Amino acid sequence: MERAFDRQDAPRMWRMSDEAGRRAFLAELPPDRRAFLAALPDGLAVTDPDVLGSFRSDRLVAVEGGVPFALVRARSTADVALVLRAATATGVPVVPRGAGTGLSGAANALDGCVVLSLMAMDRILEVDPVDGVAVVQPGVLNAAVKRAAAEHGLSYPPDPSSFEICSIGGNLATNAGGLRCLRGGITRQSTLALEVVLASGEVLRAGGRTVKRRAGYDLVSLFVGSEGTLGVVTEATLRLRPARGATATALAAFATIAGAAVAVRTVAGSRLHVSALELMDRVTVRAVEAMRPFGLDTAAAATLLIELEDVGADDLAVLEGLCRAAGAAEVVTAEDPREQEWLWAARRDALPALDRLGATLLDDVIVPRGRIEELLVATERIAREHRTTVALLGHAGDGNFHPTFVFDPADAAARAAALAACDEVMALAIALGGSVTGEHGVGTFKRHFLERELDPVALATMRSLKRLLDPAGILNPGKAI
Amino acid sequence: MERAFDRQDAPRMWRMSDEAGRRAFLAELPPDRRAFLAALPDGLAVTDPDVLGSFRSDRLVAVEGGVPFALVRARSTADVALVLRAATATGVPVVPRGAGTGLSGAANALDGCVVLSLMAMDRILEVDPVDGVAVVQPGVLNAAVKRAAAEHGLSYPPDPSSFEICSIGGNLATNAGGLRCLRGGITRQSTLALEVVLASGEVLRAGGRTVKRRAGYDLVSLFVGSEGTLGVVTEATLRLRPARGATATALAAFATIAGAAVAVRTVAGSRLHVSALELMDRVTVRAVEAMRPFGLDTAAAATLLIELEDVGADDLAVLEGLCRAAGAAEVVTAEDPREQEWLWAARRDALPALDRLGATLLDDVIVPRGRIEELLVATERIAREHRTTVALLGHAGDGNFHPTFVFDPADAAARAAALAACDEVMALAIALGGSVTGEHGVGTFKRHFLERELDPVALATMRSLKRLLDPAGILNPGKAI
Repeated sequence: MERAFDRQDAPRMWRMSDEAGRRAFLAELPPDRRAFLAALPDGLAVTDPDVLGSFRSDRLVAVEGGVPFALVRARSTADVALVLRAATATGVPVVPRGAGTGLSGAANALDGCVVLSLMAMDRILEVDPVDGVAVVQPGVLNAAVKRAAAEHGLSYPPDPSSFEICSIGGNLATNAGGLRCLRGGITRQSTLALEVVLASGEVLRAGGRTVKRRAGYDLVSLFVGSEGTLGVVTEATLRLRPARGATATALAAFATIAGAAVAVRTVAGSRLHVSALELMDRVTVRAVEAMRPFGLDTAAAATLLIELEDVGADDLAVLEGLCRAAGAAEVVTAEDPREQEWLWAARRDALPALDRLGATLLDDVIVPRGRIEELLVATERIAREHRTTVALLGHAGDGNFHPTFVFDPADAAARAAALAACDEVMALAIALGGSVTGEHGVGTFKRHFLERELDPVALATMRSLKRLLDPAGILNPGKAI
Repeated sequence: MERAFDRQDAPRMWRMSDEAGRRAFLAELPPDRRAFLAALPDGLAVTDPDVLGSFRSDRLVAVEGGVPFALVRARSTADVALVLRAATATGVPVVPRGAGTGLSGAANALDGCVVLSLMAMDRILEVDPVDGVAVVQPGVLNAAVKRAAAEHGLSYPPDPSSFEICSIGGNLATNAGGLRCLRGGITRQSTLALEVVLASGEVLRAGGRTVKRRAGYDLVSLFVGSEGTLGVVTEATLRLRPARGATATALAAFATIAGAAVAVRTVAGSRLHVSALELMDRVTVRAVEAMRPFGLDTAAAATLLIELEDVGADDLAVLEGLCRAAGAAEVVTAEDPREQEWLWAARRDALPALDRLGATLLDDVIVPRGRIEELLVATERIAREHRTTVALLGHAGDGNFHPTFVFDPADAAARAAALAACDEVMALAIALGGSVTGEHGVGTFKRHFLERELDPVALATMRSLKRLLDPAGILNPGKAI
């Protein structure tokens, strides 16, 4: 659906940051691009190549983004409506963009597209502790919502690792999850209402401040996770929860992956209030210890880090018992906040520590709870077969793992091996009844798996929904679906 | 979208239960109906009027259903596909039907429609305690899922009052909630995957056994709550939760509605694990006491019944403190299961007790937590103005109330007054930022409020989704949307 735009145009743009150059650039633009710019008020679109350069890619290292021909930094719903109306009229593709921290290429530019940044719409419009909601614009950071909620003794559960730098708009686009959403739910479950600009430029409002159903179909859930392909979110009403009660953390080391997988099942299936259940394998733990020693057991095949909330008297003992019954050799528990913080710092260090070993390619697969062991064991085998390094880590409690392939970025063969292994792990997740994405989205990177993962009638239905809502095909074409 | 079918045909059908009569009936049928029957294997459709008579209405007393011309009791997904394919080819409307316990007319027959009963598809196909799922057919009763889950130490949270007699298919159609879903979530949050037959007869499978996002758009949430207007569910994968831990129950009586509303806000917004938070007003309590004396305070303006799960040492004291701070004159607490059961029996008696006073018309409005007092006070005023009796009761914890209008069914004016008051309460809920339905659905009964509740762009979008998925308009036309 992407419009014809000659990539050869791109270098020309990069030379033209002066006014005369700009005019020459505009004169040489294809007619549809010129018509698009003409439809916008002066100054709304930026075509300065120095600026455009930083809006090409998100954080997916595997695929480089295209070269946009213009950037719009929307300041209002009306700005977004103008852009989409002009895009539909001219057929110019639009790539909506939040903070650019995505890992699937969903925010990657297409050659000749308009990048529509929502980061200037960054106001928290309201926090209502009685209704238990925050009303925010899409450019607000996840961490800012958490802070605003905390001021009222409330919390916002969705918790991607990038929470300090990722935007709510991006969280909505990918249906972000993260570490501490086992109890409070992921982004979709935390979204009560949306304002969305459709491809036509019309503004749609769906949902409300109530937590059960309302009249009509659930459009909110349809837009959440649609990666900017069905509309652009300009306002979200988010559900806040009571602040977290007393927490406790346990760290359990297992001699085998099988043992850790059993513990994941029994702990996640128990009545304990498990708010986080993370797994790190030996490769991960060794990388962490090499960067900053925490005293983790570098011989363990798998280490679980488990956080409980609203801890009852016997809860830690029950948790330790479940871990030991599953074969944990060592279980460390902490109730003191600083000790807990220390344990979690090890988990947070995992990705930076792996980054020191080479380029990293993060996968994002999810499988049913009963298939975790198969996923992990087979992933290690796949990495061996491709002679690439894989670190197994992820949100084990919901079966969502981020196998991370580490390779020398200068070695094209190593890169190819990592990509091939990553593909095989995605195919494996599908074979195990899971999905190629648990929270990062499909983007461009996983699109070639849609036919394999999805039922053909479901995929055809999704694509017909896309055509219905975006008949000109201007909204983030080539992504998600 | 409903096809022309002369209601005059109906009485004729009722006289023709013999074979000769049947043949005469078929010969006289409009060509589209004849073509529909001809497209089905012999014996799949029943046209016996004695049978059809009991498939006209659901439990909404306000509106009588139409007269169907045929009934199909589907035994398989293939049966459903046959029916929908034939219906789309001939334009004959199909009304899918579960147990018929709905309260919004969503399962009411249309004159000349086919009723498609799913109650013969009543098998629990699988319960997998490791993955934490049950795979069931739509005719399985909610109570049967709860029982099957309990055998594995698990629970199924959605909990409509009719759970012993309502079907999962109907729960999915209406996105049912109920009493004890404050923690575990309503039907949509408990549905991981669906098999759905589309109007075309194609079979679609969406979702999976994982609890986070998967590739593509969220079709599962789109079908849940769509009241049979987008497709017919033939299989559902439901999320099971750990069995409920120790519970405790408190009953708190308030001299004012305002005090009870404050308690609802503070209790629901607290860190206590509130699994149910029900309200009964004076009218309700008096009706209950008149039927079976529980010793409830018949002078209290409002009585709250609150259930906690996973009760910690101080939880009941904290709960009692919150109730007293909001002005509760009396708080009774119970930890003994039998004592708790006794308190909940009073709540379960509420509707039967009200039924003894006359015909009852149950509303199903929902408002944000901050607007509960306004809703309740204004509902009493509206009832007074219309000289009708209203009993206020409902799931206060999520702002979902069932104001129940009680009237003499033989008195047409009283019936009209109840209906008028009910309409005014729905308009009020919308004005307070709420909805005309929190769990019963729109059906036929609340459809005239869609334009008032929904944003026009959202409503137009929903209707275009309906046309996309059901171009012939055969799926439960005139309902939901």
